[in-house]
Amino acid sequence: MNGRRAGTSYIAVCGPDQASETVAAQAEAVGRALAHAGAVVVCGGLGGAMEADAAGAEAEGGMVVGLLPGTDRAAANPHLSVALPTGMGEMRNALLVRAADAVIAIAGEVGTLSEIALALKAGKPVVGLGTWKLMRADGRHADEIVRATTPEEAVASALRLATDRQAT
Amino acid sequence: MNGRRAGTSYIAVCGPDQASETVAAQAEAVGRALAHAGAVVVCGGLGGAMEADAAGAEAEGGMVVGLLPGTDRAAANPHLSVALPTGMGEMRNALLVRAADAVIAIAGEVGTLSEIALALKAGKPVVGLGTWKLMRADGRHADEIVRATTPEEAVASALRLATDRQAT
Amino acid sequence: MNGRRAGTSYIAVCGPDQASETVAAQAEAVGRALAHAGAVVVCGGLGGAMEADAAGAEAEGGMVVGLLPGTDRAAANPHLSVALPTGMGEMRNALLVRAADAVIAIAGEVGTLSEIALALKAGKPVVGLGTWKLMRADGRHADEIVRATTPEEAVASALRLATDRQAT
Amino acid sequence: MNGRRAGTSYIAVCGPDQASETVAAQAEAVGRALAHAGAVVVCGGLGGAMEADAAGAEAEGGMVVGLLPGTDRAAANPHLSVALPTGMGEMRNALLVRAADAVIAIAGEVGTLSEIALALKAGKPVVGLGTWKLMRADGRHADEIVRATTPEEAVASALRLATDRQAT
Repeated sequence: MNGRRAGTSYIAVCGPDQASETVAAQAEAVGRALAHAGAVVVCGGLGGAMEADAAGAEAEGGMVVGLLPGTDRAAANPHLSVALPTGMGEMRNALLVRAADAVIAIAGEVGTLSEIALALKAGKPVVGLGTWKLMRADGRHADEIVRATTPEEAVASALRLATDRQAT
Repeated sequence: MNGRRAGTSYIAVCGPDQASETVAAQAEAVGRALAHAGAVVVCGGLGGAMEADAAGAEAEGGMVVGLLPGTDRAAANPHLSVALPTGMGEMRNALLVRAADAVIAIAGEVGTLSEIALALKAGKPVVGLGTWKLMRADGRHADEIVRATTPEEAVASALRLATDRQAT
Repeated sequence: MNGRRAGTSYIAVCGPDQASETVAAQAEAVGRALAHAGAVVVCGGLGGAMEADAAGAEAEGGMVVGLLPGTDRAAANPHLSVALPTGMGEMRNALLVRAADAVIAIAGEVGTLSEIALALKAGKPVVGLGTWKLMRADGRHADEIVRATTPEEAVASALRLATDRQAT
Repeated sequence: MNGRRAGTSYIAVCGPDQASETVAAQAEAVGRALAHAGAVVVCGGLGGAMEADAAGAEAEGGMVVGLLPGTDRAAANPHLSVALPTGMGEMRNALLVRAADAVIAIAGEVGTLSEIALALKAGKPVVGLGTWKLMRADGRHADEIVRATTPEEAVASALRLATDRQAT
């Protein structure tokens, strides 16, 4: 139960609040694999991909924390271990990133893009699964997102990068 | 495990990061009684009273969330179920209040006072155990803190007030 | 115009959003005296004492910044030099304190109390004008608020304490 | 002086803290044109593009607000009308966006990308001047950034879009 035991990684899973079947299935598989590996899942706590990853983690008996944008806990999806209203609106995306050792971005709209950017700014690893492609104007760096093609690959990369980061 | 099940109350426990033996014993008893009642304990995640209430909740197999002021999870005490770095400094006191249905304030310094005030501002019940006494200049209202004299009484009051609030 | 010139103090003025005539007159006099002394006034941007201090500062041609709790700039009072919606609700009280070198608390309800507490926690001087009286349970420290009896005395104390703090 | 008068637009100018000569010149021209048009400039308050846009606005006698990531006002560049330490780190990027009616993104690194994304999420117009190109994985929407090729064009677009938004 104790999330602080040595070696526990916290992984933020970011994705759209309205998810296609494919994206929802990916998010659920990500949540499931993270919980299976003993990681704490941190998400936005609402519907769509956030609900799917929480359901996956719950099915494996994992710990899932939802950081809600509003002030009402009743907005949370029913699969969270802990639902925390922040009242910060989209500013809570920065909290999600702070709480995590690495971020997995699945598909996603502009909210997910903000989480990708805030994570890269904070020097935290970002693994992308069918998500945004980013190009700087000057072409110097194309993109710092680590790409994965399956949920299992995304989870393996995120856990490895989170551990590497904690070790430094 | 699922903190969202109907009836789960979230109670913030606030107290000093340097606690006397008496205050630490009170905080531990509060954490223990909250966990025994099935409540989620939310605290500041550091030492002193925050560590004591987390230890009490952990001993009862409860769920304890620590919202850390800094960005480093390693600052957390070892009794938390989930440790979330916020990087917001004392601004995270407002987050603690938002995450909770009621607040128990134990003894306390000015940080605890800010949590009391933010909770009262948000209309959330505050139960005090040997904590601040507040007087408005005009004497209109003396003090909205519900006083308790034992940890058990504080927990019973907080859970009752939290349930009343959720019911409205 | 440049608020960064050496020696400029930023003073947060805190007070109720529904002010009696006496409190409004005090707030206006505080705003006026701060602007006259060249200080930047920071306030919550809404009505009552916040509007009165802004009006006083504006009348002296001073700079007044309003940090609004909501996301709509239209909620601001009409006397601000700059109105910044934060969308943080009462969490913005912590921002007010961070922006300031010292705090003047006038009368006030629980919102003002939170600003007093957050300022004391951050080690920033607090000057009180007919505001809260605070007593710790153990009687060790009665109260760290510097008391003033007139707006002019409050401003003089706040500016002196802000300068002392900047000098260290 | 009063930033609240009807018609005043607040424009956030975002760009890298280490700017090439070209980017610095663009940022300065943007700040100058915004101030000339009577807009309030909101920026991150530090060096590079943030300093250049502030210098441009100052040269035109404009109002420039800097929202600093740290807690120390001394980190501000010397061209700000008002320098507000937030202590929120990169979370202050969300504050910048909230304070603005439209955002101009110049070149930029991942911090600027986060501001673009948070603005798009909040439904605020974003004008880009040699900045990121964004592609969703599914190719549905390429990019919601309004592109400009000169500082003057960027300012004209931002002011028009900000006014349109306020009118709705």
